[in-house]
Amino acid sequence: MEHVPSLSIDGKYPFLSSIDSPEDLKKFKPEELQKVADECRYYLIDVIAENGGHFGSSLGVVEMTVALHYVYTTPQDKIIWDVGHQAYIHKMLTGRKDLMHSNRKYKGLAGFPKMSESPHDAFGTGHASTSISAAAGLAAARDLSGSNEKIIAVIGDGSMTGGMAFEAMNHLGDTKSDVLVVLNDNQMAIAPSTGGLKNYLVNISLNKTYNKVRKFIWDSLSLFNNELGETAKHAVHKIEDGIKAALTPGAFFEALGFRYFGPIDGHDTEKLVKAFKEMHELPHPKLIHVITTKGKGFKPAEDNQSKWHASSGGFDITTGKSLKKPIHVQPPKYQDIFGGALTELAEKDHRIVGITAAMPSGTSLDIFQRAHPDRFYDVGIAEQHAVTFAAGMAAKGFKPFCAIYSTFLQRAYDQLIHDVALQKLPVVFAIDRAGLVGEDGPTHHGSFDLSFLQPVPNLVIMAPKDAGELRNMICTASLYNDGPVAIRYPRGVCSGTNPDQGFESIGIGKSEIIRDGSSIAVLAIGTMVNRSLEAAEILAKEGIDTLVANMRYLKPLDTLLINDIAQRHEKIVVIEENSIIGGLGSAVNDYLQKQGFSNRLLTIGLPDAFVTHGSMNDLYRLLKLDAENISRQIGRFHNGGIVMEENDSAQNTIRTDRLA
Amino acid sequence: MEHVPSLSIDGKYPFLSSIDSPEDLKKFKPEELQKVADECRYYLIDVIAENGGHFGSSLGVVEMTVALHYVYTTPQDKIIWDVGHQAYIHKMLTGRKDLMHSNRKYKGLAGFPKMSESPHDAFGTGHASTSISAAAGLAAARDLSGSNEKIIAVIGDGSMTGGMAFEAMNHLGDTKSDVLVVLNDNQMAIAPSTGGLKNYLVNISLNKTYNKVRKFIWDSLSLFNNELGETAKHAVHKIEDGIKAALTPGAFFEALGFRYFGPIDGHDTEKLVKAFKEMHELPHPKLIHVITTKGKGFKPAEDNQSKWHASSGGFDITTGKSLKKPIHVQPPKYQDIFGGALTELAEKDHRIVGITAAMPSGTSLDIFQRAHPDRFYDVGIAEQHAVTFAAGMAAKGFKPFCAIYSTFLQRAYDQLIHDVALQKLPVVFAIDRAGLVGEDGPTHHGSFDLSFLQPVPNLVIMAPKDAGELRNMICTASLYNDGPVAIRYPRGVCSGTNPDQGFESIGIGKSEIIRDGSSIAVLAIGTMVNRSLEAAEILAKEGIDTLVANMRYLKPLDTLLINDIAQRHEKIVVIEENSIIGGLGSAVNDYLQKQGFSNRLLTIGLPDAFVTHGSMNDLYRLLKLDAENISRQIGRFHNGGIVMEENDSAQNTIRTDRLA
Repeated sequence: MEHVPSLSIDGKYPFLSSIDSPEDLKKFKPEELQKVADECRYYLIDVIAENGGHFGSSLGVVEMTVALHYVYTTPQDKIIWDVGHQAYIHKMLTGRKDLMHSNRKYKGLAGFPKMSESPHDAFGTGHASTSISAAAGLAAARDLSGSNEKIIAVIGDGSMTGGMAFEAMNHLGDTKSDVLVVLNDNQMAIAPSTGGLKNYLVNISLNKTYNKVRKFIWDSLSLFNNELGETAKHAVHKIEDGIKAALTPGAFFEALGFRYFGPIDGHDTEKLVKAFKEMHELPHPKLIHVITTKGKGFKPAEDNQSKWHASSGGFDITTGKSLKKPIHVQPPKYQDIFGGALTELAEKDHRIVGITAAMPSGTSLDIFQRAHPDRFYDVGIAEQHAVTFAAGMAAKGFKPFCAIYSTFLQRAYDQLIHDVALQKLPVVFAIDRAGLVGEDGPTHHGSFDLSFLQPVPNLVIMAPKDAGELRNMICTASLYNDGPVAIRYPRGVCSGTNPDQGFESIGIGKSEIIRDGSSIAVLAIGTMVNRSLEAAEILAKEGIDTLVANMRYLKPLDTLLINDIAQRHEKIVVIEENSIIGGLGSAVNDYLQKQGFSNRLLTIGLPDAFVTHGSMNDLYRLLKLDAENISRQIGRFHNGGIVMEENDSAQNTIRTDRLA
Repeated sequence: MEHVPSLSIDGKYPFLSSIDSPEDLKKFKPEELQKVADECRYYLIDVIAENGGHFGSSLGVVEMTVALHYVYTTPQDKIIWDVGHQAYIHKMLTGRKDLMHSNRKYKGLAGFPKMSESPHDAFGTGHASTSISAAAGLAAARDLSGSNEKIIAVIGDGSMTGGMAFEAMNHLGDTKSDVLVVLNDNQMAIAPSTGGLKNYLVNISLNKTYNKVRKFIWDSLSLFNNELGETAKHAVHKIEDGIKAALTPGAFFEALGFRYFGPIDGHDTEKLVKAFKEMHELPHPKLIHVITTKGKGFKPAEDNQSKWHASSGGFDITTGKSLKKPIHVQPPKYQDIFGGALTELAEKDHRIVGITAAMPSGTSLDIFQRAHPDRFYDVGIAEQHAVTFAAGMAAKGFKPFCAIYSTFLQRAYDQLIHDVALQKLPVVFAIDRAGLVGEDGPTHHGSFDLSFLQPVPNLVIMAPKDAGELRNMICTASLYNDGPVAIRYPRGVCSGTNPDQGFESIGIGKSEIIRDGSSIAVLAIGTMVNRSLEAAEILAKEGIDTLVANMRYLKPLDTLLINDIAQRHEKIVVIEENSIIGGLGSAVNDYLQKQGFSNRLLTIGLPDAFVTHGSMNDLYRLLKLDAENISRQIGRFHNGGIVMEENDSAQNTIRTDRLA
């Protein structure tokens, strides 16, 4: 991180400024830790107000993080932060406090734990529900090597609904291996948690008579034992463990082989230290249930937890009010176009239902939720279930729209193939966050969806160039009943104006030429269509007259249009915001080859490497995907033939280093 | 199914022969049902002894299936069979008994439920743990449409360990929707079940004092109530539900919002009918825990449940002894080569560990298990966890070999990208059942792995041509520490002899020419290498002198070898047993294009369609992937240029029909 200037923490944070590593934290007395926690919290608010970032979840775990680092000793001991957007305090306490302002910026700290960033980051995270699996693996490795470090997974109640967390607990509970799961229960994922398990946790937490009852029953049994004969006593003794388990509020976890402790107050540092010290001494799989408040200590975030899950910064640190100059005409977000269009279509088409895996606001499906609450389903962080649930609804004649982020759809790849495509069920995948996402970085870039979807039989795959086309694609998908449809679109604001009324269906597999040209042809899809138009304008000044086609469909390809272009243009450029391997470039190349064409092709896309985090503009420039660089690549291809060296963004061979 | 001649069931099965649909079953009296069940069982044994097929799991659910169809009314009511290999009795009772001999044969009945085969198959299955999600979807659709059919998911305790089953229960338990989950608890997946949940179920089932204790505590409490003051009484009353839930043996399921019933004997038809009738009247999510014996009623199968999970037929129906002529020199299976080689390497390399998701015998990792039990991990049906667990072990310096079937790896695609490849952890994926699998059909063919793996950065991808090369690839992978490796190999016997000693490391990305030729070049990978050699022999007779290269690697490509071949041969054929989209053909084509080559390319592979079930030979012929057809395609390409019409196996455009 040496390329980022450090920011010295001034006298404002006397405790925190003395902590350069967890060893420094251990010098404080337990009763001083709350002050450390308070400073961490204020510093976090300062940093986020200035720079933006994930927010509410880190505010909720301030005391827990301080207590964990006070009791356990990283990097020997391993703390794995599920999802990882709550790890800012952890980063502060492990030598990175002076770099917090660089968080999520290009070449700055990553927004998530990252093994290559610090030895204190025991395992990289980003997607939900992975921490217990990784902890189980680290524990198995420890047990084989005979070392004795402690392993801790910190997981939210939202992440706990993801199937792999359950798979991991089921396995780990059977191994008797020493792992502590800290259940960070704030009743929230990004949206409020859903599901039976949540209700169960609420019951445990709210029902304060539980412990009283437990005591009462035990007292009763002891009393009875005195009056019972030897036989009964023996019977009771025999099933004591059974009764104990049944009377424990954490019977769910105990069923999986974990010892359950809690619930305890997640904002009482001293109590947490005491509890973690007890946990430290227990050699088996155990879970401690900690109740926290998302956004704790920052009133606006406590009051509206979904909104303050993350912030783009620029707010007043007392009121939370934005200090940014209001922009009067906000360009619409793709998400809102999606939510709005689906809501409109559903008014007439009663087959339409909306499904999200814990992302109602992120996907803007909450617009649909408000209008059609009876046809809205939030299944929790559970993409696998979301897709097969959609398949079930489609099997009975409904038209489910599954709104899932591109990278998270990787979780439901098998279900998409096995439960949807194989049965030709008309499920629509609204694939959000396709292409680069910016600051969230490599765990969240939607770099692969065109590639992994293309080989799936029976699937129609589209990508809109702007707001109006997204509306029309949603309409087209709603009318298509012969199988599943995938529509991929990016995070954030649309190019193009928002045509907020009317729909037009687009013929399946129908592309369009949106700029004619005689020198060279560009076939672009999605975000890269308007980028190509910009590049064409730059090229026009150099006398290169560029045809730009808006391909719209990866599958089926518009072969008529490609035939026409291939006959008129010797050189063709294909541009997409997807891995250079297996997307539109490969599809066009395979088609041309199969038809016996001999055109020269330049394919531009994301590199065969994980792409780092940073602003969209930083990343586009880095990858030479900004209009300027694209025009340069096209120009060179037009003038000189093959552009091997320059085409950094298209690497077909394996790289030993990576950009991430 | 009209193309398959029906087999008339003679006087041997008087009850069964009168049942052409579930309506006929309902004409029997409850006390006659056991006879129906017995006949179903004997008929199943007859059919399997003759034809082969999945076996043990259907034997275990004979009574349950009869009782379900007696109480519920399909196709109005929906029964979803998780995995589906236990649905043979269901097929018999729903109009398909005369076609059972065609089961799993080309153009015959599918080995799994299939919506297009019968309206009684409410949802197609094949992979584990999908049934509750599909049931939840069907139930949501029913609740929206206002109809009132019943929906039942039948799921084994093995499948219950798959994360998506948990995701589905967590969602469904919160909806209050009317769904019955039948937990078919036989303590087995294909191998014995593992995990904390299994122990929990065993405790419920074995601990017969449980019910006694429950009664005892209730009695105690009533008694106490009499002696307690009003306050205490009030307190007890207030938390009665809490106590009730806590005292229920199914607290785990109740925590998720299900009502739990059981355990009950799964081989007592009358009891089952009574229980299902009670279930029929309850309007909420509920689970009934049914204890069954896998292989029930066929002694050899009861005694060795893993072995008799499926059978290839040809055994004595009393003793289970094989009636087939013993083959003295068995060609080795790829699985055994894998298991043996890994075991050998692990003797010297103590970093090697073996991980399976409930498939120790299917993958032959049980060979490793016997030799190195401390380094063997069966995590249950939990591919997602298996991969991130492996990543955790790799992060601490171990070298995990994750043996997973190609289609099941689709379940762990996100984990492979996000937890392994992004962090460049040296996990080895031993991808079993890559390519066609034959009788199991479209849910189990490994058609897509080369395509979905190719875009993953940092990943090395190989496929061996025979037994010896698999050994060497396992050795090569064990020595490679710069990132993950995938080795894909098919089900069943190897071509080539078994070099059961010695290892040779293969340079990463190093291909080889195994037959030189001057007329045309074939680049083949995996199973298609020897097939191409056969084709080359046929072509030699026609005077076409064919070069055959064993590519070995999809990634990184051996670009030196491709350069050399492209300079010497105008026409190049690429052959692989993987979807024609996104595999080796696309990779070679993209590379040639990028380098400015203008060679003509013919790509041969699996079609862009789901491939039906049948014997491997049937399927190879159907897809024109047998040596004869391959040689014909190559010959035509060599002689005439482009072979559009003939190349049925290579469809780049979307198909409205499908082969499955």
